[in-house]
Amino acid sequence: MSVENLKSHLRTVPDFPKKGILFWDVTTLFKDADCLKELLDILTDLYKDKGITKVVGMESRGFVLGAALATRIGAGFILARKPGKLPAETIRESYAKEYGTDCIEIHTDALSPDDVVLIHDDLLATGGTAAATERLVRKFGVTDIRLNFIIELEELGGRSVFPAEDKVESIIKV
Amino acid sequence: MSVENLKSHLRTVPDFPKKGILFWDVTTLFKDADCLKELLDILTDLYKDKGITKVVGMESRGFVLGAALATRIGAGFILARKPGKLPAETIRESYAKEYGTDCIEIHTDALSPDDVVLIHDDLLATGGTAAATERLVRKFGVTDIRLNFIIELEELGGRSVFPAEDKVESIIKV
Repeated sequence: MSVENLKSHLRTVPDFPKKGILFWDVTTLFKDADCLKELLDILTDLYKDKGITKVVGMESRGFVLGAALATRIGAGFILARKPGKLPAETIRESYAKEYGTDCIEIHTDALSPDDVVLIHDDLLATGGTAAATERLVRKFGVTDIRLNFIIELEELGGRSVFPAEDKVESIIKV
Repeated sequence: MSVENLKSHLRTVPDFPKKGILFWDVTTLFKDADCLKELLDILTDLYKDKGITKVVGMESRGFVLGAALATRIGAGFILARKPGKLPAETIRESYAKEYGTDCIEIHTDALSPDDVVLIHDDLLATGGTAAATERLVRKFGVTDIRLNFIIELEELGGRSVFPAEDKVESIIKV
């Protein structure tokens, strides 16, 4: 199965979550066993020899392939969540939204400075949330950080917000 | 690694999400690569020969091992989400909460009557949300349904709310 074939399985939903937004829906890839396996095979090839010790999945579509990849490459899986969702002590980082700010949290005992981290989410748009997650991971003293997205909306230029663009990978560019 | 060893890696957090609740935190299992792999190996052994075509993960901790298991046993992965989170047309089912009711949704095109479904979540407590998810899956015409939980709080008797208790499995009983 090619990336073009994966792309043909994507669904777009106009005006979600609000008017004027075209939503790229990965659930149509996840529900298809062949697409799901192909996505995971591509991710495994990309990251199997990078020494990744922890995959950080971004709430909540990032949990889906993030954890599956972690089990494939022998890494642990860490949940990056919205405020108040994680039960124990957390470290948090805020980011600007269209109106106001929001936060993302990781458990204080989830990462160590010597971890090699891959941050995973389904979609790279403007990159605001992912960049906050990267700053949050750096707060743990981690220096070797990669980022991965299933879909990248190239015209929004989201990857330019990361300090090291060459550490950012996406599978389907639209 | 034994189930007792997995149990020893669980964390309990008192008074979360509110006073008087002892929260069983699976993130300490997920972050440990050996525990994560062991959990997935146990799930794979349980379900590899059951003809499962779709794993339904319950928002959002059920996405973590649910999707990893789907990729292991060649099934598709379906997200069961809280209202308003899924972008396309959905079917929903409501359930009683302590105060009022809530709903769970699955995309209308996610399941077919001939699917063999495993519903997965991290925790079985009273079983209210999982039972609603089972009713929701039945609305698609699916008749072969199993349920799986990482942790089962046995004294709450949650498994008795399901029509077929022998289709309910849990890994760690506490």
